[in-house]
This record gives sequence, C-alpha cells and structure tokens, in this order.
Amino acid sequence: MRTCYTGEVSREQLDQTVTLFGWVHRRRDHGGVIFIDLRDRAGLAQVVVDPDNVEAFATAERIRNEYCLRITGLVRLRPEGTSNAELASGEIEILCREIEILNTSVTPPFQLDDDNLSETTRLTHRVLDLRRPQMQQNLMLRYRVSIEVRKYLDSLGFIDIETPMLTKSTPEGARDYLVPSRVNPGEFFALPQSPQLFKQMLMVAGFDRYYQITKCFRDEDLRADRQPEFTQIDCETSFLNEVEIRAIFEGMLRHVFSAVQGVELPAAFPTMTWEEAMRRFGSDKPDLRVKLEFVDVSDLMSDVDFKVFSAPANDPACRVVALRVPGGAAMPRSEIDAYTKFVGIYGAKGLAYIKVNDAASVPEGLQSPIVKNIHTQALTQLIERTGAQSGDLIFFGADKTKVVNDAIGALRVRIGHSDFGKEHGLFEAGWQPLWVIDFPMFEYDEQEGRYFAAHHPFTSPKDGHEELLETEPARALAKAYDIVLNGWEIGGGSVRIHRADVQSKVFQALNIGADEAREKFGFLLDALQYGAPPHGGVAFGLDRLVTMMAGAESIRDVIAFPKTQRAQDLLTHAPSSVDEKQLRELHIRLRSPEVK
Amino acid sequence: MRTCYTGEVSREQLDQTVTLFGWVHRRRDHGGVIFIDLRDRAGLAQVVVDPDNVEAFATAERIRNEYCLRITGLVRLRPEGTSNAELASGEIEILCREIEILNTSVTPPFQLDDDNLSETTRLTHRVLDLRRPQMQQNLMLRYRVSIEVRKYLDSLGFIDIETPMLTKSTPEGARDYLVPSRVNPGEFFALPQSPQLFKQMLMVAGFDRYYQITKCFRDEDLRADRQPEFTQIDCETSFLNEVEIRAIFEGMLRHVFSAVQGVELPAAFPTMTWEEAMRRFGSDKPDLRVKLEFVDVSDLMSDVDFKVFSAPANDPACRVVALRVPGGAAMPRSEIDAYTKFVGIYGAKGLAYIKVNDAASVPEGLQSPIVKNIHTQALTQLIERTGAQSGDLIFFGADKTKVVNDAIGALRVRIGHSDFGKEHGLFEAGWQPLWVIDFPMFEYDEQEGRYFAAHHPFTSPKDGHEELLETEPARALAKAYDIVLNGWEIGGGSVRIHRADVQSKVFQALNIGADEAREKFGFLLDALQYGAPPHGGVAFGLDRLVTMMAGAESIRDVIAFPKTQRAQDLLTHAPSSVDEKQLRELHIRLRSPEVK
Repeated sequence: MRTCYTGEVSREQLDQTVTLFGWVHRRRDHGGVIFIDLRDRAGLAQVVVDPDNVEAFATAERIRNEYCLRITGLVRLRPEGTSNAELASGEIEILCREIEILNTSVTPPFQLDDDNLSETTRLTHRVLDLRRPQMQQNLMLRYRVSIEVRKYLDSLGFIDIETPMLTKSTPEGARDYLVPSRVNPGEFFALPQSPQLFKQMLMVAGFDRYYQITKCFRDEDLRADRQPEFTQIDCETSFLNEVEIRAIFEGMLRHVFSAVQGVELPAAFPTMTWEEAMRRFGSDKPDLRVKLEFVDVSDLMSDVDFKVFSAPANDPACRVVALRVPGGAAMPRSEIDAYTKFVGIYGAKGLAYIKVNDAASVPEGLQSPIVKNIHTQALTQLIERTGAQSGDLIFFGADKTKVVNDAIGALRVRIGHSDFGKEHGLFEAGWQPLWVIDFPMFEYDEQEGRYFAAHHPFTSPKDGHEELLETEPARALAKAYDIVLNGWEIGGGSVRIHRADVQSKVFQALNIGADEAREKFGFLLDALQYGAPPHGGVAFGLDRLVTMMAGAESIRDVIAFPKTQRAQDLLTHAPSSVDEKQLRELHIRLRSPEVK
Repeated sequence: MRTCYTGEVSREQLDQTVTLFGWVHRRRDHGGVIFIDLRDRAGLAQVVVDPDNVEAFATAERIRNEYCLRITGLVRLRPEGTSNAELASGEIEILCREIEILNTSVTPPFQLDDDNLSETTRLTHRVLDLRRPQMQQNLMLRYRVSIEVRKYLDSLGFIDIETPMLTKSTPEGARDYLVPSRVNPGEFFALPQSPQLFKQMLMVAGFDRYYQITKCFRDEDLRADRQPEFTQIDCETSFLNEVEIRAIFEGMLRHVFSAVQGVELPAAFPTMTWEEAMRRFGSDKPDLRVKLEFVDVSDLMSDVDFKVFSAPANDPACRVVALRVPGGAAMPRSEIDAYTKFVGIYGAKGLAYIKVNDAASVPEGLQSPIVKNIHTQALTQLIERTGAQSGDLIFFGADKTKVVNDAIGALRVRIGHSDFGKEHGLFEAGWQPLWVIDFPMFEYDEQEGRYFAAHHPFTSPKDGHEELLETEPARALAKAYDIVLNGWEIGGGSVRIHRADVQSKVFQALNIGADEAREKFGFLLDALQYGAPPHGGVAFGLDRLVTMMAGAESIRDVIAFPKTQRAQDLLTHAPSSVDEKQLRELHIRLRSPEVK
C-alpha cells in the first residue's frame, strides 16, 4: 500500500513509483499545472498534477486544503533551481499518476502555518492544531524520549510495574483529586499525587529495580505551566547509595539526550550542596548558564551608616549580597529602572546599585547615591571581594534572606537572559545540568509554627543526622537530591528511610502523632518491619524535560490534550455537569445546585 | 557492590568471591553448620556459614526468616549428591565470608511458601505476598510482555501518545468513575473507560500510528475477574483495512509469545465469522481446544411428537442443536446429572440426551426416554448429520437461541475441560488463537426496546451495509473483530467510521438524536469534517493476556496492588472517608452523612 511516509520520499526513490497518503497542506495552480504540497507526520512532498492526466487533473481541481488523499506517482528531480533545501524531499517531486480523495474537508478555521493563534483557538480546535508540523514533532520527540528512557532502564534491570490510580487520600502537601466510591458509600478514592509509597512497598517486596512512566495528579491552582495531570518518570532501586543512584540517573539523561538529539551532556554532572546553591545563586535550582553570582557582604556592611544595609547585615534572619554585572555600567538607566520594578515582585523594597567607573579609585570612582553612606574600607573590600572591574555595575540585595534570594536570584537570571547579558558574555548557551544535594530535612513554616518535610516525610536523614531529628531538626540534612537543568528542576529524589524507628522519629519531628501516622501510613510502617531493604529513587517530570528538549514555550505544547489554566479541556468540554442519577449512585449531592 | 542476583549465581562463578543481597527464605542448622537460603527476585542460592568463621557464624545465629542481608562469600560446588536440579544455582553453594544484616524482620504472619492462603490474607499483607516467587515471576512476566509489545509496535512506527485521565463523562455503556472539579463548581471529570475518542482524534490529527499501554476505568459490579481499573494495550492506525490491521496485531501476539515464552503461535491465525462461531459453538469466543461442536437439527425436529423439540424447532427465535460427545456413552450417570444441573445456570430447563449404543441400528441402538417420541427418519438423519458412532452420547439444546447458545456453549467447554474430556481426546492442549469477524453492528435490547452498539458507536459498517443502517439495522454487519485465545476474548477492535455522514446515521440507528450527539460527541463530529483518514485499531486486555500466559487463576495474581471484589484496597484501606474540608472545596456533600 503505502511506499513510505510522504516526508521521507527522497532521491533514493528516483524514477520509482510511490504510493503516499497524506493531507493537502497547500494547493496552487501554476502555468496550467497543479502543485499539491502533501503532508504527513514525517513532513511534506510536492506533487505535480499535469493536465495531460485528465482524470487526476479533474480530481486535483476539486481538492482543497486538508483533504485527505492517496496519491500514486513517479518520483523525479525537481527542475533545476526549484529545489527546497529545507525539506527532506526538497530535491524531488512526485509526478501524479492517480489521486484518490479519501476524505474531503471543510475550510479549517485557521491556517496551519499561522504562528499567532491564541491558545484558546488552538485548544478548542486541538485536532487541527496537532496537525501543525511543530506539534507533530513535539509529540514524536516526547515519544522518542520515553522509549529511550525505557530502553536505558530495561538495560539496567529496571522493570515497569503499574501502581494503582485509585488510591487512598492522605492529605499532606498538595490537594487530592477525589473519586467517590459507589460500592462503599461515603468513601472516596484519591488519584495519586505520585506512586511514592507504592514504589517503596515494591522495594520492600523485593522487586529491586522499578520504574514507571505514569500520570500523577495535583488539584492545585494552576500556575503558568502546571497541569492537573502530569507525567512522571518514576524510579526506585534497592541496595544502592546516593552516589550510585545519581550515577544511574544522570546516565539516563545522557543516554536520552544522545540518542534522541545527538547532544552529549557532560560525562559527570557537577554536584553542589543546597547550602552552596543558596549562597551563590539564591536558588536551589540555579541556571548555571548565567555567569553571575551572589557575593555575601553582610560582614562588610554591618557598621555602615546606611541603615538599609546595616540593619539586615546585623540580623541573622537576613542577608546582604552584591551581584556584580561585568560591563554593567553601560546598562541604560531605563533597564535598571525596569529591574527595580522587577525585584519588587519578589518583595524587595528597592534595588541599590553602584556603578564602578574606576575600580582603582575608591570611593571617587564609584557612582551611586549610597556611596556616601558607606565607609571607604567597606567599599574597598567590596570591590576586592566582588572582583569588580572598571565599567562594571554592582547590584545589592539586603533584606530577609528569602526575599534577597528570591529577588536577586530572579534578577540574576533576568540579566543573564537579557539582550544585554547575551551581548556581554553573561550567558553561555548549551545544556548545564547540576545535582543539588544535601537538602535540609525540614522547612519551618512560620505561619503554622511547625516543620514540614522539605522533600517528603519518607526521606532518609544523612548518616549521623538521625539525632538532630529530635534535638535540632532545622540543622538535619537529608539524603535528597534534585537534578537541575538550565535553571529548571527536572527531577528529584532521595534515599528513603528503611527502618521503622527512624520513620517514626521523622513523623514526630513533623508533628504527626503515632495515631495519625498509623491511620495514614500504617501500611508503610508495617512494611518497614519485614526486612525492608535500603532503597532510594528519583522522579523526573517528563512534561518539563520534553518541553526543554523541544525548545517549546509551554508544557501544553508537548501534551496532546492539555487542560487550560482553569483546568478545562476546551476540545471535549470537560469537566461538565452530570446526571442526577450518577450523583445519587455515588451517594453525593451538589452543595449549591444553583451554582453553574 | 552486588556481583549478580542471588538466583543467578552458577557454576560460572566457581571459585570466585561474590557479593549478594537478599532475604532469608529459610535458615537451618545442620551438623553444626548454618545453611541460609538467600532469596531475591531472580531466585534462591544456598549460603553455608561455617562455625570456623566466628563473626559470621555469630551473626548467622541471630538471623531469622525475611531478614535482609548482604553476604560475601566463595562460590563452590555443593557436596556430591546434594545438588538441587530445580534451582539455577542448584549445583553450587556460597561459603560465607561476611554477613551484614541490612534490616531485621519481625515474624511474618504466614510462610511465604504456603499455597493455601486466603485472598484476604494475601491482599492485606500484599507486600509479603508479593515476595512469593510466583508473584515475582508473574510481575516480571507482565513486564516482559509490555516491553515486547512496545518493541514490536515501535518497530512498525507506532508511537506512544498519552491521552487524558481527566475526561468528559458520556454515560453510554458502563458507569463512569467521576471526579468533582474544584475550580468549576458543580462539574465533574470522568476517568476514561477507554481512550477510544482520543485515539481517533489522534488519527484525524495525522499521527498515523498510535499506541498506549494505559489504565481504563469502569465502575461496574465486579464479576469474578474484573477490576475497577484495568490496563489496555490500545492501538490505532490510519490507512489500513481490516485484514491489514489484523495482520499487524496477530504479529504482535506472535512476537510476544515467542520473545517472552519461546512459544510459536500459528503463522496465520484462523478467522471465523461471528455467525459461524455462534452456529458451531454458541459463543463469540469459542475455545477451539475443545473438539466438540453444535449440529443444528431444527429442521429434523420440526415434525416430531416431542414438543420440547418441535416447538422451538418451529420458532425462528429458537434453535435446536445436538452436541455429539465421542465415547460419551461411557459417561457415568452422575456426571450427566451434574451437567443437567449446570446448564440450568444458563436458563436451560433440562438436558435431553441419547446414548448411541449401536449407531447402525436405529432406533433400537439408541437409548433414551425421548427416542420413542422422535420418528425414525429424524433419528437416522440425526446420527448421520452428527456423525455419531457407537459408544457416543448426544446432548440436546432446544430453547430460545440465546439460552441454547449459552447453555450448550458452556456445556461444550465444561465437557472438554473435564477429566472425561481430556481422557477421551476431546481437549487439545496448547494455544488456539482465533479471529472472530463480521460482528453485527447492533444488538437489540428487548427490555429497552432499542438497538445498542455491539462494539461501540464509532464502528464502521461493512462495505455495502451502510444502507441497512436505516432499513434493516439488525442485519448490518460491522468491520469489527475480536481476537480470541483459548476461549477468552483478549482483544478486539474495528475499523472506525471516518465520515461524518455515516457517523450521524449510526447515531440515528442508536436513537441518539442530533442534539444529544452534538452535546456528547460534537468534538468527534467536528473532527471528522476535516479530512479524517480511514482508520481503525484494536485494544488488548493486558491483565487477561498476562494471566493466561502466567497460567494464573485470577487477574489479581498479575496486578501488584489489586482491589477486592468490593473494590477495596485491603493494604492501604482505600477508599476511605475524607475531611469535610475536602468535600466543601469540591462543592459536594454526602447524601446521608450517617451512611458508612
């Protein structure tokens, strides 16, 4: 039947007769001849219908965009000077012998090559939107990534084991999607936020190496690039330590990038402690492509006359940092003003800066209203410590540590990605993977006045930190690691707790009482009692990873049928109201029947 | 670290030092030496701890069943006469040099090799149950099947595209699992009963070949071997006809059986129309291993004195069939009585039979109370048509067609699988695949007084049957096919409707009005307007397929964490009650708060 995909016809089939299936991408009459660009998932080919072929020509005259065709014809070279280097089939054309219209099409609501469609239009007409070559390539790429992940994990003895979608609700962390039970009135399943506990139980059951590429669900307010259902590459292994686990999974990324895109990632990914990442970049997922970093200057500013600096410099809950921008003195005032506004989003009350006109003469060579309030010794040391050169700009952050990290961290990335940053060598293109390790076990929530698990409550403390769980939880570090790529956390994991007594201590530190722990996680505590092996793992966000590899703007561009930010499917109109009969069977009723 | 899996140590490592991880399957003292059977996912190995090794021996003395260990030792041959041919590692043992207890275990609630555990015990302690070698093998087999499916489909250009789990409820067929929406009050998602419409839309979008191994959901009362969530190998392709599609997917089964179990299925699967299957076996999923078949005798019995036969023989809604059992005259009376009771389950009011003592002398050679009421000509033709020989038994079914098909169809299988059947060559072991094709488009529901789709409403009628949709829907046949293996339907599919006008006609025949069709399936009707390609596909039930390949008794034996027949997870205690706060956020309340 089909000889090959339309987009794959090439010189190799020269003078051969081929049969192709595809859609009319464009049709044009030119000098009495009809040209059809026929499209399929592999690309385009040019079909020429000559008026000598009366029957085919008559059919071709009826053809409109997006008609579905079968075409048989002879592969020949395009006339000299008309070949198209952008197409795989650009050197050849197909002289049509026979056309069959397999299906007609009404006029599409938009041109497939229109790049300025609103997202609402695209999602409402998703079937047509998916015909666009870019979307076809994105989903093909997604498939290649997932199949290469499988090949790699298979070669290392990981086996795919399916875990349930109808699970128990354990409200902790994000909000669950609930599913009312018909058979058990008043009870509910929850869709899984991750297969975490099931994969740990598979390790206790002795499966040794597990993986799954699976849907997870979080009913959260959708930020820019989140989906209610998302896909996780979920992995777990027994009997390996942190370093061994990381080696396996950075190997996976190397394999995938190499096999799918021919890109060679570094042979060993750099590793950085969480503490260092926060200190140098104000972020636990630093974009290492940006060649700027924080310099702590609290000690220098503790006795200056400038309260904005000296107050936080003397407060252990605060930090004062400098961000040196090489060549930044040339930055236009308007850009600096824009950055001042930008850091406000993150809670910064202003954005102090110093222009370094002449690094050799302090303070005269420094230009800034704040210079006069900072004594010369501090300024001299500032220049020295930041390594500032003449022509540089130094930004400052001075506030609560979190505000400084968020604001100056975001500023750092913003400058790096700006035209200015790219022109001044502050941005190095390419793939920059990084392991961030040694995360704290807990984060303290001021509002709720208690600790929360920084990773999740099943994460093992670092060796020697077990005692801190009781004495100084804030200082306890975890065997947790995130894999960061170009400033995005694309995966994370940890060595898990495999001893029931340690697990109980962590629950205590989290203020989860023995009864509550048993009620929610009794099955895990039970499982740990039966010779649970040391184990750990990782989970990657497939949507995000593919988005980055595709160079797409949104994860919605690598998901076939995504939801909008209001969690709706514009194509099928889900969610929707349902029959009263259905609700009755599920033993529920709507809270306010009028609402709609 | 680990040299290899415990179950893989063999002669090849003789005289080498190995490091193994695993669980204590058994420990025994014998002549002052401690023997440990160490177990992992690959099997068992025997570890010998000599009292000379004081430290290891002291540790070994503390060891109990299901402790998790690391063991280092020397591989040596077992003493002559003590090797175990049942184990891969049966020729060798490991002389222990070092033991580390990685985790202790409390005493398990049952012995792992106890084969008489109740299902409640097994599912409550699923983590331990999964440690049993049989369960480990079942889930490994399941994995091998799924990965070989992927390899095969990948080689043919099928790509895995994920479809949504949060979809629109379209009550038609089975009951949906619903998910209340928080963001859109009063509205609900449904978990998908299958990705049917999404995969069709992917074909319209031009992806050409799609597959997915994915969870589907049906909130039905659970029969013996159903699960609320089950796994489907879901496939769809464009531009192929029925025969081509079947060829691809029987090739998939051949590949999987060959690659996973070394079993060669037939080079071409037999094909049988639905009409023939019902006529010869009373079933659309005949078990061809059973060498018995129906013989229609309505015409012979239309004028006999025996009302039980003559009445249905003259009623077009009924049939009269004979089932000849070679050698059946030797069947003990008690067995025949049991069968009489058995067919009652299917609505048969009795089970007439004739013993053929001497096939050459009719009617004297025939033994049965009914013989005297059937004239000799009918009896003679009966013997001739059934090919009955002396020593055979002939059973009869005479009733509404459905009752005869169900009752005598079940009887046929029952006899074939009985000891009698196996001893008398009525059962041929092995794998007997079969395509059943040409299904009717519709089934008439007497109670509701309307037609239902036999497959689903998106199935294409056979060429030339489009007109019957309006004139004689009962006679319209579909391009639908089921793949049957040893009497189980393991998959099914169809060529789909790719033209909006045909789809509308089918909706009409199903009494789905234009408004309702648009409301429920508008997105499909829209999609079909834009040059939808001819397409079709198939879906396999992975759980059932693996159950059969594993020789397991229940699909629950090939699912890691299944639900009970009351749709409960006994391990994690799902479903469960949830917080009032959660319900409030979802805009629902319980119908009767007391119910629990």
